Amino acid sequence: VIGRLAVFGVGLIGGSVALALKAKGSVGEVIGFDRSQAVLHEARSLGVVDSHAPQYVASVAGCDVILLAVPVGQSGLILEAIAPHLAPNTLVTDVGSTKDDIIGTARRALGEKIGQFVPGHPLAGGEKHGPKAAHADLFLGKKTVLTPLAENTSEFVERATHLWEDCGASVVVLESAAHDAALASVSHLPHLLAYALVAQVARSSDALLKMSLAGSGFRDFTRIAASSPEMWCDIALANRKQLLAELEAYEGLLASLRTRLLAEDRDALFALFDEASRTRSDWESRQ
Amino acid sequence: VIGRLAVFGVGLIGGSVALALKAKGSVGEVIGFDRSQAVLHEARSLGVVDSHAPQYVASVAGCDVILLAVPVGQSGLILEAIAPHLAPNTLVTDVGSTKDDIIGTARRALGEKIGQFVPGHPLAGGEKHGPKAAHADLFLGKKTVLTPLAENTSEFVERATHLWEDCGASVVVLESAAHDAALASVSHLPHLLAYALVAQVARSSDALLKMSLAGSGFRDFTRIAASSPEMWCDIALANRKQLLAELEAYEGLLASLRTRLLAEDRDALFALFDEASRTRSDWESRQ
Repeated sequence: VIGRLAVFGVGLIGGSVALALKAKGSVGEVIGFDRSQAVLHEARSLGVVDSHAPQYVASVAGCDVILLAVPVGQSGLILEAIAPHLAPNTLVTDVGSTKDDIIGTARRALGEKIGQFVPGHPLAGGEKHGPKAAHADLFLGKKTVLTPLAENTSEFVERATHLWEDCGASVVVLESAAHDAALASVSHLPHLLAYALVAQVARSSDALLKMSLAGSGFRDFTRIAASSPEMWCDIALANRKQLLAELEAYEGLLASLRTRLLAEDRDALFALFDEASRTRSDWESRQ
Repeated sequence: VIGRLAVFGVGLIGGSVALALKAKGSVGEVIGFDRSQAVLHEARSLGVVDSHAPQYVASVAGCDVILLAVPVGQSGLILEAIAPHLAPNTLVTDVGSTKDDIIGTARRALGEKIGQFVPGHPLAGGEKHGPKAAHADLFLGKKTVLTPLAENTSEFVERATHLWEDCGASVVVLESAAHDAALASVSHLPHLLAYALVAQVARSSDALLKMSLAGSGFRDFTRIAASSPEMWCDIALANRKQLLAELEAYEGLLASLRTRLLAEDRDALFALFDEASRTRSDWESRQ
C-alpha cells in the first residue's frame, strides 16, 4: 500500500491511476499537481485527488510515490523541480509514450537520485481528455511496459510493478530502445501517417467534396488524427530517431508499391495486400 | 416498382440491395447470379434471392434491372455475356468503387446499348462478406454516387436514382473522374497505406513484439488492412491513375514531414498536426 501518492497531471491517465489505486485500497492519500488550476479543482471535486498543492513542490518530500502523467515535453521541468525534495525511499515513475528521451532527461535532472526513477508506459488511453474521462478500469487487462535502469534496485522495480498490477495491468519489462522502436512502428508512425492523410485531403481544392464522400474506412483510419497535436509533437520529437527510421522504411515501401502500380503488376500488389491482410486478421484473432 | 431484378454477385452489397428493395415492396422477383454455387444456394435459402439461373445468362432478357455487384475485375466478362440478351428497356447499373474504368469496360462490352448503363457506387460496406452479412438497412442514411453518361436518357438515370432511394440511400450525382479522384483520396489511398503499414510491421525482425504492444490506435488505423486483397487489388489497378496522383502527393508530404522531424522544427510539425486534428474533428462533428 502506498501511503501518499503525488500525481503530476490529473487528466485521463494520471486520474485513472489515482482512481484505480483508490478502488483497490492501495493508496492512502493522493495529492494532485497540474499546470491548470481549473483541471486541478475539477479533479478534486470529482474525488480523483484528495488534495492539491501546486505551489508547494516541496510537499513531494512526504510522498512514497510520484507519478508523472504529463505530456512528454513537460517532464523535464517537473523532474528538476522535485529533485531537491526527493526523500531516499520515494519512487518516481512516469507514463510517457517514449522512454529513451525521458531517461536522458531524468538522468540530468535527478543526478545521483536516478536509481529512484523507474520508467513506465501504460498501453491504454483514449480520445477523451481530463479528469472527467478518468476511470478506475482504464488499465484493466491492458499492458504496462517498464524499462528499468541499471541503477534501479529490484525493490524499486517491484514497487513500480505492484503499482501497475494494482491498477489491473499486466507488466512487460523491456529495454527502453526496444520499447521506443516497437512503439515507433505500431503507434507513432501510424499517427504521423493519419495526420498527413487528413492534411492532404484538407489541402486539396475539392476538400469538401472529398470529405463528404468519406466513409467508415476513412473514419477508422483517421481516428487517431483527432488526437492532441501538442502531445503528438512531443512524442514525435522525443522519439524522432526511431520514428525517422520507421518513416524512411515506410517511404521505401510506398515507392515500391508505386512501382508495382505503375507496372500494373497485379501479382506483386496482391502479394503485399494478402500478406498484410493475413497478418492483420491473425493479430485481431489473438486480441 | 421493378418487376424482375437480376443481381450478379449476391454477397453483402448485392444481397443487401435485394433485401432492401424487397422490404420496401419495390421489386417483384430477384434472380441471383454468382460465380460460387454455394453462395448462390445460401442466398436462396436465406431468402435474399428468389431464384437463380447461373447457366442461363439469357434469362436477363426478361429483367427490368440488372445490378452488377461483383469485384471490379469481373464486371467486364459479365457485361460481355449479357450484352446480346439486353432488352431495350433494361437498366444496367453497378456498385463498383471506381467508375472511369468500368465505364470504359461497359462501352466496349455494350456498344450501342451503352445508354442503358448508369454507373453507381453506394458508399456503404463492412468487413463481413457474403449473403449472410446482407441486410435491408445497409444503405439507410448512406450516400450512393451516380456518375451518369452522356448517353443516358434522364429516364434511365431516374430509374437508377429511385432504386437507390428505395434502398434508403441519398443519391449524389458526380462526374466519374471527380468521383474517382475523391475516392482515391479518402478511401483507396488509406487502404494502400494501411496494407503497407501492416506489411512493414510483419516484415520486421521483432514483428511479434511489435504486434504484442499494438493498441487501439493500431487496431483502428489498420482495420481496413483486413479487407479482401483481391477486391482491393482490383480497385487499386482500376483507379491507378488517380491513386498514383494521390500517392505521389502523399510521398511528397511524408518527405516534408521527415525534413521537419530531422530539423526538430516543432512549429512546422505542430502546424500540420493541428490542421489535421481540427479538420478531422470538424468532419466528425458533421457526421
